[in-house]
Amino acid sequence: MKSELRVALLGQGFMGKAHSNAYCQAGHFYDLPYRLRRTLLCGRDAAALASTADRWGWEETSTDWRTAIDRKDIDIVDIALPNHLHAEAAIAAAQAGKIVFCEKPLALSAEEGRAMVDAAKGRPTLVWFNYRRVPAIAFARQLIEQGRLGTIFHYNAAYRQQWGADTSRPATWRMDPAKAGSGVADDLLTHLLDTALYLNGPIVEGVADARTIASNRAVNDAVMALVRFENGSAGTFEATRFAIGCRNQNAFEIHGEGGMLRFDLERLNHLEFLDASNPSTEQGLRDILVTDMKHPVFPNFWRPGHIVGYEHTFIATLAEFLQCLARDEPFHPGFEDALVTQQALDALLRSAESRQWTSVRG
Amino acid sequence: MKSELRVALLGQGFMGKAHSNAYCQAGHFYDLPYRLRRTLLCGRDAAALASTADRWGWEETSTDWRTAIDRKDIDIVDIALPNHLHAEAAIAAAQAGKIVFCEKPLALSAEEGRAMVDAAKGRPTLVWFNYRRVPAIAFARQLIEQGRLGTIFHYNAAYRQQWGADTSRPATWRMDPAKAGSGVADDLLTHLLDTALYLNGPIVEGVADARTIASNRAVNDAVMALVRFENGSAGTFEATRFAIGCRNQNAFEIHGEGGMLRFDLERLNHLEFLDASNPSTEQGLRDILVTDMKHPVFPNFWRPGHIVGYEHTFIATLAEFLQCLARDEPFHPGFEDALVTQQALDALLRSAESRQWTSVRG
Amino acid sequence: MKSELRVALLGQGFMGKAHSNAYCQAGHFYDLPYRLRRTLLCGRDAAALASTADRWGWEETSTDWRTAIDRKDIDIVDIALPNHLHAEAAIAAAQAGKIVFCEKPLALSAEEGRAMVDAAKGRPTLVWFNYRRVPAIAFARQLIEQGRLGTIFHYNAAYRQQWGADTSRPATWRMDPAKAGSGVADDLLTHLLDTALYLNGPIVEGVADARTIASNRAVNDAVMALVRFENGSAGTFEATRFAIGCRNQNAFEIHGEGGMLRFDLERLNHLEFLDASNPSTEQGLRDILVTDMKHPVFPNFWRPGHIVGYEHTFIATLAEFLQCLARDEPFHPGFEDALVTQQALDALLRSAESRQWTSVRG
Amino acid sequence: MKSELRVALLGQGFMGKAHSNAYCQAGHFYDLPYRLRRTLLCGRDAAALASTADRWGWEETSTDWRTAIDRKDIDIVDIALPNHLHAEAAIAAAQAGKIVFCEKPLALSAEEGRAMVDAAKGRPTLVWFNYRRVPAIAFARQLIEQGRLGTIFHYNAAYRQQWGADTSRPATWRMDPAKAGSGVADDLLTHLLDTALYLNGPIVEGVADARTIASNRAVNDAVMALVRFENGSAGTFEATRFAIGCRNQNAFEIHGEGGMLRFDLERLNHLEFLDASNPSTEQGLRDILVTDMKHPVFPNFWRPGHIVGYEHTFIATLAEFLQCLARDEPFHPGFEDALVTQQALDALLRSAESRQWTSVRG
Repeated sequence: MKSELRVALLGQGFMGKAHSNAYCQAGHFYDLPYRLRRTLLCGRDAAALASTADRWGWEETSTDWRTAIDRKDIDIVDIALPNHLHAEAAIAAAQAGKIVFCEKPLALSAEEGRAMVDAAKGRPTLVWFNYRRVPAIAFARQLIEQGRLGTIFHYNAAYRQQWGADTSRPATWRMDPAKAGSGVADDLLTHLLDTALYLNGPIVEGVADARTIASNRAVNDAVMALVRFENGSAGTFEATRFAIGCRNQNAFEIHGEGGMLRFDLERLNHLEFLDASNPSTEQGLRDILVTDMKHPVFPNFWRPGHIVGYEHTFIATLAEFLQCLARDEPFHPGFEDALVTQQALDALLRSAESRQWTSVRG
Repeated sequence: MKSELRVALLGQGFMGKAHSNAYCQAGHFYDLPYRLRRTLLCGRDAAALASTADRWGWEETSTDWRTAIDRKDIDIVDIALPNHLHAEAAIAAAQAGKIVFCEKPLALSAEEGRAMVDAAKGRPTLVWFNYRRVPAIAFARQLIEQGRLGTIFHYNAAYRQQWGADTSRPATWRMDPAKAGSGVADDLLTHLLDTALYLNGPIVEGVADARTIASNRAVNDAVMALVRFENGSAGTFEATRFAIGCRNQNAFEIHGEGGMLRFDLERLNHLEFLDASNPSTEQGLRDILVTDMKHPVFPNFWRPGHIVGYEHTFIATLAEFLQCLARDEPFHPGFEDALVTQQALDALLRSAESRQWTSVRG
Repeated sequence: MKSELRVALLGQGFMGKAHSNAYCQAGHFYDLPYRLRRTLLCGRDAAALASTADRWGWEETSTDWRTAIDRKDIDIVDIALPNHLHAEAAIAAAQAGKIVFCEKPLALSAEEGRAMVDAAKGRPTLVWFNYRRVPAIAFARQLIEQGRLGTIFHYNAAYRQQWGADTSRPATWRMDPAKAGSGVADDLLTHLLDTALYLNGPIVEGVADARTIASNRAVNDAVMALVRFENGSAGTFEATRFAIGCRNQNAFEIHGEGGMLRFDLERLNHLEFLDASNPSTEQGLRDILVTDMKHPVFPNFWRPGHIVGYEHTFIATLAEFLQCLARDEPFHPGFEDALVTQQALDALLRSAESRQWTSVRG
Repeated sequence: MKSELRVALLGQGFMGKAHSNAYCQAGHFYDLPYRLRRTLLCGRDAAALASTADRWGWEETSTDWRTAIDRKDIDIVDIALPNHLHAEAAIAAAQAGKIVFCEKPLALSAEEGRAMVDAAKGRPTLVWFNYRRVPAIAFARQLIEQGRLGTIFHYNAAYRQQWGADTSRPATWRMDPAKAGSGVADDLLTHLLDTALYLNGPIVEGVADARTIASNRAVNDAVMALVRFENGSAGTFEATRFAIGCRNQNAFEIHGEGGMLRFDLERLNHLEFLDASNPSTEQGLRDILVTDMKHPVFPNFWRPGHIVGYEHTFIATLAEFLQCLARDEPFHPGFEDALVTQQALDALLRSAESRQWTSVRG
C-alpha cells in the first residue's frame, strides 16, 4: 500500500487552479509512488474558497495560510501566494518540517531567497518553474547534453505578452511593487532565466534596460538585457507586457557550432532543430512535433500527434518530484536552483538602475 | 443539490482513457448541471480492469458489458468498444432506457446506424466526434455561420497518419475488417466527414479510390475521394495511414468568396483565416491563436495563450452535452448526425468498389 | 568565338516579357556556349510592339508571326502565342528547320500534340514548363532519384489562384475555349501534371471533376482529380482559379516510405523535407532554403540566402537547353515530354465529361 | 529623346555583379527618364576585368579606379570598393562633379562620413542600403506612416549569418580591420540600423557587446545591442556571422499599440502584420505575400504571386534614384541618411569598448 502525502495549497488564484489540477491529474497519467490527498486549501476570500474547494475536491479550507504550517498532518505546503509572502511562508513551512513547494519567483530578492534556501536545507523543495517539463524543452536539454549543439555561440530568449498595454484592466497585486517585486521581470524574465540556466548554464554578467511604459504604473512593463554566459556564449533577453500581437510568446533560439534550436510556448508541442552535421544541401530547421513515445515527458499522456497543453507541465513537474522523492534522488528545480535565477534577476535589475554592466555574483 | 448521473463506461483502451479523463475533468472546468459518478467500468481484460478502475476512480468493474445495460442504477452507457459492437450495445442500452454515448464510427454500415437511430428515438445520445469541440473548429463554424466566407467554392480535407506503414506493429482489432469495418475509412475518414458536414453541410455524391497498401492487410490503408456538396462546393478528402511524416494531421482548407480558412489538428490551438474583405494589399492568412476569452470552448479552461490539447475536446463534448440535457436543448452530434456521416461514408466505400460516382442518398 | 543563335519571339504578352528577360539574362549568369541575338519580335499590336522591342532590345519587329518562319536567318522560333496557335506555328517552324520553343500547354489536344512531335522529330525542342528549374523542384528530383523517399505512397498537388472569382476582370483569350482550350486545366493543371511526371513518373488512369463556377464563363474554373501512378502511388490534383486567398499557390506534397517532401511556389526558394531515416524523436519537416552552392540551379545566380524569384526559372530553362544543345545531350522537357502531359490532361478532361475512371493511354 | 547617363562602376566583386545587373535590368522593368550607359568598369584584377566587362556589357575597363574620376564623360561614379576606399573615392568623385553612388557602409567612421557628406553637398548621392526597396519593407513603412502601428513600444532586429563559423574559409578584405572596419558591425549591423532609422526614426543612445569568436580574427563576429529610440521605443539589435542555421536572416519585429509587423529577408516577399484594431478573436499575424499590384516596388516586376528576389532591390533602388533625379526630388538613402546610420554605428562600437551606455550624438 502506497503511503499518503497530505497537501495544503496556499492560494486559489490562477496558479491555485493549475496546481489543483496537477494534484487531481498526476495519478491518472503517472504511476505515482505516493497517494496524494488534497487536504487543505487556504485563501483569503472565504466565499470563493468553499466553491473552489468543492470544485477541485479539497477536503478542508482555511482563510489563514498559517493553518497549513501549524497542522501536524500536512506533509506538503504548496505556496501560490503573492510574491511578497513566499519567503515568510516557505521559511515557516520548512521550519515546521514540511516539504515545500513554491511558485516562482522564489522571492523578492536574492537575499530573501538565500534565507529560504538556508531554512529549507535538507528539506525536499520544488519551485514551479513548470516550463522545464514542456516536452520540447526537456528534449532540447537532452539534445544539448548529448553535445548536439557543440559550443554555444548565441542564446536569445523573449517572453512577450500584450495585456500590459490594456490600461483599463483592473490592477491586481501584480501591479503593486510591494507584493509583486519589480513587475514583468519577476513575472516573465524569471521564466526566461530559469530556462536559460537549465539549457545553457550560469550567467556571468549583464546589462539591462527596464521600462515602465504605462504612465500610471509603479512596476516595470518591459526589460531588455544583454548577458554573457559562463560557457562563453552571448545572450539576449526581453520580457514585456507590451508586445502587441503576442498572447504568451515564450521563445528561445540557440545557435551552436552543431546546429540551432528554436522554441515558442505558443507552439508548446513543437521544437525546431537544425542539425549542422547534415550535408549543407539538406540543412533546414526541422519542425519536430514532440509527441513521440521516446520523447521525454510526453509519453505519460497520450499517443503521437495527440498534443498536450499548458496544464501538463504542472502535472509532470509534480509527478517527477514525487518520483525523485521516493527514490531519494535530487529534483530540479528546487530552492537552490531558483536562488541562482534570483541572483541573475537581481543583477539585471541592479544594472537597470545603475546603467552599468553588472556581475551576477556581485 | 444537483442530481447525479451514474455512468458506465464500456471499454478501457485508448478511448476508455480519454473518456475517463473527461468524466474526471468536466466538473473542474465547467459548472456542470449534474454530478457525474464513475459507477461502472466494463472491459474484457480482468487484470487490467482493476488497475484502470483504480487509476481513474471507477467504483465497480465488470468483464461483461451487458452488466451496464442490466443495472437499473446506470444512467449513461458510454460505448468505447470495437466498432462491430457499437450497434448491439447501443440498441440494448437505448432499449433499457439509458442515455447512450457511442464512439465513432456510429456503426459498421448505414443500415446498422439506422437501426441505432430508431432504437434511440427520443433518448439523448452523443457520438464522440470530439473534434467539433476543438476551439478552432467551433470558431470556424461561427465565422461560417456569420457568412464571413460567403459562397463556398472549395472544401478540402485530409487526415494523415503514418503508423500504417510500420508493418511490424502488432495487429489490433483495427486491422480486422469484421471488427473495424473498412479500415482507415471508418477510423479517420469518418472524422473528416463529420467535420465537413458540420462546417459545409450535406454531401450529394462522390467518387472514391480505396487502397490497401500493406500486402498483409485486409482493411484499407488509404482512401481518396472527390465529392460535391449540396451548397455547390467541390470537395476532396484523403484519409491515410501511409502519410510518412504525419503524426496526426487532420487538416481542412476552405475557400469561399469571402475568404479562406485552414486548420490542422497538429496545431490544434490555431485557426488560419484570410478575410477577403480586407484591402488587397493587406490580405494574408492570419494565424489566430484560438485562446481568446471570447472564443468558443477555450475560456472554460485557461487564459489567453495557455494552450489546450487533445483531451480537452472530450471534456468540452461531455460538458456541452450535459448543459444541453439540463436545458432540454438539442445536442450535436447525436446518433442522427452520425448517421448522416455514415451514409456519406457508405456511399464513398460503394464508389470505391464500383469505381462510379455514387449518390449519398442512393 | 562562340557561334550565334538568332531568336524570334512570337508573342509580347506576360510570357513574352518573361522570355525576353531570359534572353537578356541567361548570359549574365551562365557561361553560355552560344551568343544569343534578340533578332525578331512578333506581335499583333503594332503600337505596343515598338516599345516592347525597344525596352527589351529586340532588333526588328513584325506583326505577322509567319515572318519568323520565313526568315532564313532565324535559328530559334519561340512561341508564346495563344494556345490555339501553338500547333500551327510549331509545325511550321519545325518544317522550316528551326529550333522550336513553345509555351505550355503544348497544344489544345493530344492529337495536335502528336502532330507537333512528329513534325519536330529530330529537331531540338523546348516546352516552357519552367518550374522544372525551380531550384527546390530540381533538388526534390535529386532526392527522389537518390532513393531518399523509397516507394512513393501519395502524391498530392494543387495549383490555386483566386483571380477567376473576380468576374469584373476583362476577358482575355484565356477565357475563350477556342483559343485557350478547356480553361484552368490547360493553364494550371498542365503545370501540376508536368511536375508530377517529372517527379513521380507516368500516370495510368484517373477520374476528374471539372467545374465552371462563374456563370458567364465558357471554360472550366476548377478541376479536381484522383489518379493512379504507374509506380503504384495514389495521386490527387486540384487546379482552380477560385481559391480565394491564394495568389499563386503551386504546391505538392509527396509521402514515401523514406520520408516526405513539400513545396509551394509562393515559397519558391524553400523545400520541405522529412527524412524518415532519422530517429523518430528527431523527425520533422525541414525547411530547407534551397540557396546552397551545392544545390541545383541556384549557384548560377547569387550566394546562400540571397533568394531568387519567378523569372530565374526561365533563365535556367533557357541556359540548360543551350548547354544540352552544345553537348548534343537530351534536354527536358521537349515536345515528347509535353505530349505525355497532354495525354494525361486529355484523359482527365474526358473523365470529367464521362464521369468515369479513364485510362491515360486509352 | 532621353538624355544619357554614363556610369563607371568601381569594383567587380559580388556587389559589382549586383550593381551591373541593376544597370542592365532597370530599363526593362521601369520607364526610366534616362538612358544608362555602362561605360567603364574598374577593378584591380585585370584578367577578371575583361571577362566581367564582357559578361555584363561594360564598354571599357581600367585597373585604376581614379580613371573614373578623371574622365570627363563619366556622369555617375558607383563605388563598390572595399570599405576603407569609400571616403577617398567618394570625395574625389564628388569634387569632380559626379553623381556618386556608394556601397554601404558609408565609411569607416562617422568622421569620414561627415567629410563625404561635406564634399558631396549639393550633389545627388545614393548609398546602396538596398533593403529599403524590398517591397515588404517599403510596405511596412507605408503602414507605419499611415499610423497603423500607433505608438511604437518595441523594435527588435537581427541579421544572422553562419559563414563566420567556417574558419577554413579563405580570408578576404572583410576580415581585415584596416579595410573592412570593425567587422560584422560594418557589414550587417549597418543594414539593421538603416532599416531601423527608416522605419522607426532616430536612435538616441545604446549599449553594445561586441565579440570576436573565432580566435584567429581581428574583426568582430557578433554584436548585440540595446538602444533607445527618439520615439520612446525600446530596441534590440543582433548582428552575427555565427548564427548556425541562418543563411541570410535579416529580420525585424515591431510592436506598437496598433499592432505588430514582422519580416525576414529569407522570406523577402512576405510581410507579417497583426492589426490590433480587429476584434480580439480575429487577431492573428497575417502572412501577406507582398506581390499585389497596389503594393510598393513590386508591380514594376511581375504579377501577383510571381515572386521577386535579392537582385530586384538593387534594380528598384537605382530606378527610384533616377526618377527622383529627373523630378529634382529628394532621394533616400543618400550620404546624409547614411551618415546618421554611421553615427549610430560609431556610438555602439564605442559603447562596446567602454562598456557604457553611449549617446549617439555624443
